[in-house]
Amino acid sequence: MCGIFAYLNYLTPKTRKEILDFLITGLQRLEYRGYDSAGVGIDGTSNAQITIIKKQGKVKTLEDEIEERKGELDFEGVTNVHVGISHTRWATHGVPSAVNSHPQRSSEDNRVIVVHNGIITNYKDIKTFLITKGYTFESDTDTEVIAKLVDHMHATHPACSFKEIVEKAICQLEGAFACAFKSTLFPGELVATRRGSPLLVGIKAEHGLDTDSIPIQYSAESDSKARGHEPVESPQIPRRKKSGTLRLGTHTDSTAEIAPRDPKDAVEYFFASDASAIIEHTNRVIYLEDDDVAAVKDGVLSIHRMPHDGSSSDSATNREITTLKMEIQQIMKGNFSSFMQKEIFEQPDSVVNTMRGRINFETESVVLGGIQKYIPEIKRCRRLLLIGCGTSYHSAVACRQLLEELSELPVIVDLASDFLDRGSPIFRDDVCFFISQSGETADTLMALRYCKDRGALIVGITNTVGSTISRESHCGVHINAGPEIGVASTKAYTSQMLSLVMFALVMSDDRISFQPRRQAIIQGLKQLPSMIEKVLKQDEKVLEIAQTLHEKRSLLIMGRGYNFATCLEGALKVKELTYMHSEGIQSGELKHGPLALVDSEVPVLMILMRDAVYMKCMNALQQVTAREGRPILILEEGDTETMKWAKDGHYIEVPRIVDALQGILTVIPMQLLSYHLAVLRGCNVDCPRNLAKSVTVE
Amino acid sequence: MCGIFAYLNYLTPKTRKEILDFLITGLQRLEYRGYDSAGVGIDGTSNAQITIIKKQGKVKTLEDEIEERKGELDFEGVTNVHVGISHTRWATHGVPSAVNSHPQRSSEDNRVIVVHNGIITNYKDIKTFLITKGYTFESDTDTEVIAKLVDHMHATHPACSFKEIVEKAICQLEGAFACAFKSTLFPGELVATRRGSPLLVGIKAEHGLDTDSIPIQYSAESDSKARGHEPVESPQIPRRKKSGTLRLGTHTDSTAEIAPRDPKDAVEYFFASDASAIIEHTNRVIYLEDDDVAAVKDGVLSIHRMPHDGSSSDSATNREITTLKMEIQQIMKGNFSSFMQKEIFEQPDSVVNTMRGRINFETESVVLGGIQKYIPEIKRCRRLLLIGCGTSYHSAVACRQLLEELSELPVIVDLASDFLDRGSPIFRDDVCFFISQSGETADTLMALRYCKDRGALIVGITNTVGSTISRESHCGVHINAGPEIGVASTKAYTSQMLSLVMFALVMSDDRISFQPRRQAIIQGLKQLPSMIEKVLKQDEKVLEIAQTLHEKRSLLIMGRGYNFATCLEGALKVKELTYMHSEGIQSGELKHGPLALVDSEVPVLMILMRDAVYMKCMNALQQVTAREGRPILILEEGDTETMKWAKDGHYIEVPRIVDALQGILTVIPMQLLSYHLAVLRGCNVDCPRNLAKSVTVE
Repeated sequence: MCGIFAYLNYLTPKTRKEILDFLITGLQRLEYRGYDSAGVGIDGTSNAQITIIKKQGKVKTLEDEIEERKGELDFEGVTNVHVGISHTRWATHGVPSAVNSHPQRSSEDNRVIVVHNGIITNYKDIKTFLITKGYTFESDTDTEVIAKLVDHMHATHPACSFKEIVEKAICQLEGAFACAFKSTLFPGELVATRRGSPLLVGIKAEHGLDTDSIPIQYSAESDSKARGHEPVESPQIPRRKKSGTLRLGTHTDSTAEIAPRDPKDAVEYFFASDASAIIEHTNRVIYLEDDDVAAVKDGVLSIHRMPHDGSSSDSATNREITTLKMEIQQIMKGNFSSFMQKEIFEQPDSVVNTMRGRINFETESVVLGGIQKYIPEIKRCRRLLLIGCGTSYHSAVACRQLLEELSELPVIVDLASDFLDRGSPIFRDDVCFFISQSGETADTLMALRYCKDRGALIVGITNTVGSTISRESHCGVHINAGPEIGVASTKAYTSQMLSLVMFALVMSDDRISFQPRRQAIIQGLKQLPSMIEKVLKQDEKVLEIAQTLHEKRSLLIMGRGYNFATCLEGALKVKELTYMHSEGIQSGELKHGPLALVDSEVPVLMILMRDAVYMKCMNALQQVTAREGRPILILEEGDTETMKWAKDGHYIEVPRIVDALQGILTVIPMQLLSYHLAVLRGCNVDCPRNLAKSVTVE
Repeated sequence: MCGIFAYLNYLTPKTRKEILDFLITGLQRLEYRGYDSAGVGIDGTSNAQITIIKKQGKVKTLEDEIEERKGELDFEGVTNVHVGISHTRWATHGVPSAVNSHPQRSSEDNRVIVVHNGIITNYKDIKTFLITKGYTFESDTDTEVIAKLVDHMHATHPACSFKEIVEKAICQLEGAFACAFKSTLFPGELVATRRGSPLLVGIKAEHGLDTDSIPIQYSAESDSKARGHEPVESPQIPRRKKSGTLRLGTHTDSTAEIAPRDPKDAVEYFFASDASAIIEHTNRVIYLEDDDVAAVKDGVLSIHRMPHDGSSSDSATNREITTLKMEIQQIMKGNFSSFMQKEIFEQPDSVVNTMRGRINFETESVVLGGIQKYIPEIKRCRRLLLIGCGTSYHSAVACRQLLEELSELPVIVDLASDFLDRGSPIFRDDVCFFISQSGETADTLMALRYCKDRGALIVGITNTVGSTISRESHCGVHINAGPEIGVASTKAYTSQMLSLVMFALVMSDDRISFQPRRQAIIQGLKQLPSMIEKVLKQDEKVLEIAQTLHEKRSLLIMGRGYNFATCLEGALKVKELTYMHSEGIQSGELKHGPLALVDSEVPVLMILMRDAVYMKCMNALQQVTAREGRPILILEEGDTETMKWAKDGHYIEVPRIVDALQGILTVIPMQLLSYHLAVLRGCNVDCPRNLAKSVTVE
């Protein structure tokens, strides 16, 4: 929910202004993860001090504050070795305010400071304990206990290194976290660790590195034995059986640390919640795993591990340095007013990227490399489960019908959180799909582990290579939509749908009776990019409609069949971006309650395509009209008969495509509408209030 | 959606005032089915005329209009033989208005008039055809074509009887209907028919009847042969294989008609959409089946059939006269201000009625007589499907977790309409539950037939003995909640849940490891009535909360786990009754979008019981609080720690019960809240706008 960024320069002289600029730019890249307050912690003018600057509000507010205090901060002072940590927050415990912002600290003299992404579930118990030890607390956060607990560990184990006291502290923590620490007791050193929340390290060395991977050091003093794990001292074959998606190498270099080739060489380290904050500095990164503790001392990075709970998270014995393929311009928003708008208009391209190399339109064949060898096993399964949260869940709803049709299997769609609450029965012959743009969604990941423990085959559908879900799946489909920065998901939704459609095509490729249906869909896919362009041309008309709606408080969106998911997704977009109370309603349920809401005041939007449920949708339309509702319609291009029913000619024409793909086209006007409504209402499109891009806590 | 009532008196002299009173009282009993306009059709002062009186608004408006015109209507005139038909409407085609009300007529001289409940889907084609025949139309209804089509059939077949021309006309209709006809061409005769919508006949004869059942006459001239059916001329063994729930007798009396013992004897017939309009006159009724045409001529009732589409609806060869066990006081609202309020407060009794004779608290055993012999078959099934609409669907959501736990089977919950839209795969080893208070819900019934055609075992869960769903199921559970008149379902919901809980107990009775869990639930069931009473005592407190909320436009209701269904159901109740835009939100989804809605203005209600998801719910609560949301809480009795989080002390305490039953207790404050909000907002509690009790069209 929050974004962490830390920067360590070793023997690379930087002015304090340069360091602060790095930190602020890093936070700006991560701002989509949270933006209600931000803070930095850097060395004070003497090495024995730490200066913390925190502000409620967006990163820009923090930047302005720093600019204002530039004299006091000694902008021009140069440091040879320095550690800076920073944080952009999305509040979970305690309202947004300066005192609740990060870094949180151990004491008024800032002995130990920490930035944290996640939730500590047992923080109350720890707080109670620390109060008995004489600590007093200044914030309402769960994070503050971490800083004070590390400080307490130092007080009780004065001989231990920085890394060791952090290890001792996090052994006591329950919940999810990624943290970076800085301390006046260990100047020039940085320690970072994660469990549940993502964290990666970028490395930039002037003269290259002496290794391409780094073996894990298991702490001799770790409590692994007590927990039933053998301490692992030497490299082993990774424990994972199905290694199809294993991103980590098996390189067995015996060097225990990573360092520049020449010990006197300059090196810089960047710690961040995701790659977008690192890519502009270096493309060489290490993804940390759960319970890794990374420490940098004297310019040397080492990774230590305390086996915590080996059952839920596989771990290899090395961390390979991978090369990011992302390009910097991919994450810039170009000529658009917001990332979200850019991402909506990218969809003619992003759907092509999703299909590239997978569909051969000549031979009408579909191959999904990431799951190809599992297809025989999948075809023998008892049922398919599709699990996700929010927009990803809607993509599953959208494709359920086609999957049922082409796989002839029962298809169950579940919200990850509800699925976990119920502790639903899972069988060894189930195939479970986990859908998540970031690949880090906490509920989806926990559902994945639940199903994996019960022996089901795990298929990941993510947009982020190397994400936890893609690493822990047996096989998967990378949706290839490109980085999505806008908090409200748009192009990832259409690409998720497309991935599921391609999967349905693969499942039916050997069935003669399904060939005409498959051909119709594949031909539809071929036309999809140009049809999306056609829909995007309606942008002006959508804006006109938005102008009539933006002062309303509620919006009902109705449809059924293949377009029901569009109603749910459209309503979610409007909710997220405009704070209007919108709701997606299955037209068939109208008479069982929601029709009571309809009168001449409440705006209603209905989707009426000429598919198998057109007549049923017309019935719903007539009921709404009979109650003096005056609906806005999303309808089929050239359907002049249906147009007559639209309020003041307020309709949006969408080209006809094969029914199973229609939802990809009908959702685009909803994306545009939510965007225009948000702009008209003066809302921040890319950073809606209260929301963060990647939800890495339950 | 509409209510039909017709009254025929034969050799029983009645004043026109008495006849009109019968019609109006009948409509009042049916008013819960629709109440936006009403009308009656009776003989004019000469038999060759028909007078129609129609008014927009509730039945009371029509009653006032009749009172005003009493001089012109000749209140004191006595008729020996008379047919009156009447209708209370819930608009589907055409806005509520006098001209769109029923009876609809063939022509300005009211040659043929009809009242209709249902939707004619091909009315546009018929209208186009009739216009070519010179008919002109005055209303926007689909019903008007029926009257004109019957008239057209008379014009083209002048020798045919009233029954025959109606048969010819309805052969041309597609959709759902129940109709009653009256004509100046056939004075003293009444014809009624149904397909899809319910209709029954009450019979009151001074000296008893000459038979207890009535054989079906198959029309010689029917088009059954053309449709691939053999015309059936004589009684046969019913085609249904599993006759466990067959309500119709196999009495094979050869009399083709029903008549009083002495042909000169007085007899009265009452045709109505349901029994509540008939019970005060007689308890002897015949439930008509799809495609039955009932005709009364010279005081004699006969039932004819045109086989229409034999595949979807079983039909016996007799219609038995059944005796209604309903009592008149059961349908009166007593000291309560509305039926809904009465039904909420009846729940301590209605849950006892649901459990009566089924649970033995001494031996901790559960027997469901209606499905007992199918249990071995059900235990061998592949999966359980629970299908319903609106509130019935929510009862399935509420029990899914317990069913998954105790049956160890995959449990799928689907909206009937969405299930049908998807054409979901169904297998012979599936067990499908169909849940409907009325047993007549059109979508649920169609889903039932879809699953039955594919060989699944069909289990009905209804509140109405003799309803179509209970007749067409292989087996079932009658929830025994007593008649529910309020359009918004309350006691039926809790009894539906209870029936599913009992089913889960039956499924696990032979499993040793489940015994402690079963015992805990059975002990919970024993305490349930007294605990419901405890919750009902919070009524004053709920009213106080309602007073702070009733001017708001939106309401968000959040919870998860066993209480998620309560959020959905609570939001539906508020929507139905108060026209506030309320929405039930899974707390786990909050961070995936809905949290953007939360600020200090939007009212939020959260359910926080001390169950397995308490900590997760507290996380959600803290997020809402961090966004300055000030939630109203439904929490566990005596949970002083959680109370502190409630806005201005606005919380409702609910006693703790075993988690699987908690939803029955948490929904009651939501029922009370929606009731009080509706009263405070000046809404009609029993007849919410735009809604009808029983949704008998798609």
